[in-house]
Amino acid sequence: MAKEKKLVEAITSMEEDFAQWYTDVVKKAELVNYTSVKGCMVLRPAGYAIWENIMHELDARFKATGVENVGMPLFIPESLLQKEKDHVEGFAPEVAWVTHGGSEKLQERMCVRPTSETLFCELYKDIVHSHRDLPKVYNQWCSVVRWEKTTRPFLRTTEFWWQEGHTAHATYEDAEARTVQMLNVYADFCEQMLAIPVIKGQKTDKEKFAGAQTTYTIEALMHDGKALQSGTSHNFGDGFARAFGIQYSDKNNQLQYVHQTSWGMSTRIIGALIMVHGDDSGLVLPPRIAPTQVMVIPIAQHKEGVLEKAEELRAELAAAGFKVKVDTTDKNPGWKFSEQEMRGIPLRVELGPKDIEAGQAVLVRRDTREKRVVALTELAENVKDMLDTMQKDMYDRAKAHLESHMYEAKTYDEFKDTVANKPGFVKAMWCGDLACELKIKEDTTATSRCMPFEQEHISDVCVCCGKPAKKLVYWGKAY
Amino acid sequence: MAKEKKLVEAITSMEEDFAQWYTDVVKKAELVNYTSVKGCMVLRPAGYAIWENIMHELDARFKATGVENVGMPLFIPESLLQKEKDHVEGFAPEVAWVTHGGSEKLQERMCVRPTSETLFCELYKDIVHSHRDLPKVYNQWCSVVRWEKTTRPFLRTTEFWWQEGHTAHATYEDAEARTVQMLNVYADFCEQMLAIPVIKGQKTDKEKFAGAQTTYTIEALMHDGKALQSGTSHNFGDGFARAFGIQYSDKNNQLQYVHQTSWGMSTRIIGALIMVHGDDSGLVLPPRIAPTQVMVIPIAQHKEGVLEKAEELRAELAAAGFKVKVDTTDKNPGWKFSEQEMRGIPLRVELGPKDIEAGQAVLVRRDTREKRVVALTELAENVKDMLDTMQKDMYDRAKAHLESHMYEAKTYDEFKDTVANKPGFVKAMWCGDLACELKIKEDTTATSRCMPFEQEHISDVCVCCGKPAKKLVYWGKAY
Repeated sequence: MAKEKKLVEAITSMEEDFAQWYTDVVKKAELVNYTSVKGCMVLRPAGYAIWENIMHELDARFKATGVENVGMPLFIPESLLQKEKDHVEGFAPEVAWVTHGGSEKLQERMCVRPTSETLFCELYKDIVHSHRDLPKVYNQWCSVVRWEKTTRPFLRTTEFWWQEGHTAHATYEDAEARTVQMLNVYADFCEQMLAIPVIKGQKTDKEKFAGAQTTYTIEALMHDGKALQSGTSHNFGDGFARAFGIQYSDKNNQLQYVHQTSWGMSTRIIGALIMVHGDDSGLVLPPRIAPTQVMVIPIAQHKEGVLEKAEELRAELAAAGFKVKVDTTDKNPGWKFSEQEMRGIPLRVELGPKDIEAGQAVLVRRDTREKRVVALTELAENVKDMLDTMQKDMYDRAKAHLESHMYEAKTYDEFKDTVANKPGFVKAMWCGDLACELKIKEDTTATSRCMPFEQEHISDVCVCCGKPAKKLVYWGKAY
Repeated sequence: MAKEKKLVEAITSMEEDFAQWYTDVVKKAELVNYTSVKGCMVLRPAGYAIWENIMHELDARFKATGVENVGMPLFIPESLLQKEKDHVEGFAPEVAWVTHGGSEKLQERMCVRPTSETLFCELYKDIVHSHRDLPKVYNQWCSVVRWEKTTRPFLRTTEFWWQEGHTAHATYEDAEARTVQMLNVYADFCEQMLAIPVIKGQKTDKEKFAGAQTTYTIEALMHDGKALQSGTSHNFGDGFARAFGIQYSDKNNQLQYVHQTSWGMSTRIIGALIMVHGDDSGLVLPPRIAPTQVMVIPIAQHKEGVLEKAEELRAELAAAGFKVKVDTTDKNPGWKFSEQEMRGIPLRVELGPKDIEAGQAVLVRRDTREKRVVALTELAENVKDMLDTMQKDMYDRAKAHLESHMYEAKTYDEFKDTVANKPGFVKAMWCGDLACELKIKEDTTATSRCMPFEQEHISDVCVCCGKPAKKLVYWGKAY
């Protein structure tokens, strides 16, 4: 019992200490394990299964737009990394360097990829010759390494898993269309599958990707009012193509530089899932992404027929297309409920001898604790209904939370007061100067999250300097 | 036309130079691209799609046996790698060392995983406490790095993709059962999906995995008569558990060491696919693993209705569950045929104006070039029949090739003569001494491939030293 008690008690409440709550959840829901490798985590089965579902779902959406998957090398020779000036400046300070192979010192050191633009450029230079070879729309699923000083599971780790799409096009317009298309794929995926509403916008020059001409982003709002950049899509123009010499002959047999994009979503999004939907009992997973959607929990399972009936319901629900398990361990039901809740399994089916006698079961939703006593003959349709409703409700709640944490500021005092006292996004006008962006960060720790696609005009002047405003920016503290 | 000609002409024949034929195929079928990173390859879409199918299929088979996937760190600190003596001796000479993170020198260097036993041991030590926590049956899909001096695409590369299963069990018997179970999964997968017959057996002590108590292997025979180790499964006993201190309390509350296994299959198996089934026109893919099973090739596609009808057939075959594409490029049909053959696409559907008029299409099998003129109303059933037959025929041919390249040797002269002149496996008795194994390798370059599960008694004495024989061994030259 000592161990059981520990698990139930060990969750700090969100109100008390949000950061500790987060750490407790990732550990107690058995999503990750720490390792002796600095800043690296193990994704345990419960955590990796979420990532598998994300991969499966995103991959299908990618392929529907013509994406082809490839496998690229793990290493980048130093000279290759250095070919694009902005890119190397952005990444060189945070890479891991391989200097020895076996017992020999390498002639040229190589970094473990922090991202693979340079490797894709080398490939495209080799295989793109004619306009007939375009577009190339490649993607890879892999892990990358960035040498982080302070790390937190999913949110910032030395190694993380992601996909990185890299494309080459004949024209700037084609590249731009793909950049926006993939941002929309990310946004739809977050909203439809993860029940996370996002804001789509463009990064300021300061916040854009090293080497990009334009970076688009989707930004989500966590339960504590901090923002999380959840996916980005970059248009490189022909910058990398010029640095690497990637040219094709067009229909008039003239040599042209290709235009490139890249776009990525990572295991970071699991951090968003936790912080948007979780509660004081642990994880809450949206039904569409949950590795296990329904847990059947037998009550008084030692009694004759209980386990058999539980297995029968499992088989019935599995046949109806649900991801369902039975908890047949020798723990007591209360403990099993706590575990199912901690792990965020959307629905539980409670089934005891009396239920069986009455031809019924008790369904309990993870998010609202809504209970329904349903006839066993109507089990599958009730499960479907409750899961569908839960998915929708989770999105609606997250959307309401986002909208109720969206503020406007017209003066700098108002801005500083809002950032200090009202967690969320602050809409404010900006003159476009880096100086104001830096001053705002210095004064408030808030950063420009994005210049939203849906621009509004809330004032004529920059909230910071009072000069004429160019853009509406969403500002906020961020993970 | 210059480029077309080059592609068709550039395949060396297998008879002329098998190694060059292999290199030509992997390049011309666009499976891989070389990179500036020493010994690393790019898996291009055609190559990666084969690996995706292999992963998908193997993963389902794993999960049916209770396997759960996890994500483990890319790095292993040197001190962790050193904990198991045999293991570090086996791998330390061939690892890549990370010595710097960003601009700082690491206090302890880390290697890029060559395999992950040590990382799984660290995890299991942390999460296994009670007999209730066992078994743990984990697997990961990833790439690993081994510093190879000479490399060949798929067969031996510095970085390669694979899966590595790592399990922990209460008893030796449980571990042994899992070791054999996974070897059987590999063997069934090779035979049923890849149409590659394999020999199952145990490795000699010399050839077993560094740190293993027992290593089982499946060995396949390539077209040139050389063997290829295609998958291995290891029983570690409690060796790693003792080195890492992985203990659980049993039902009597006594501390016991766990017993562990690991098992892996890699992108190397794609090398086997190429060398078992390929021919002088390129790759030949078994229908069950082919990313594209059917290529519809329009003839005189500029004529009215041809492309529309081709697309109609594609849609019909896709709806019937086949992986099918139409080649609508502006190349001529002969060129398209060559490309489809080079890429190993199992079946092509030729469709021209006259065929449409006659309500028919021409189906051509990749392996035998068998042609069938079929009524369009009977297209799907003919496609199914030809693909099913092709899959079976490919296995039967590979099996016949294996059986006709299996020799016996009772004397050492006979053995040496067979190895020198008859490519294939040589069955011969062995005394069990390392000295004989080393002498045979020295004298003939043949190595012990395995002690087959199906033992035969072909002589009383060791083929090398004449002392009493303990085991029948399959010997052969190997990749």
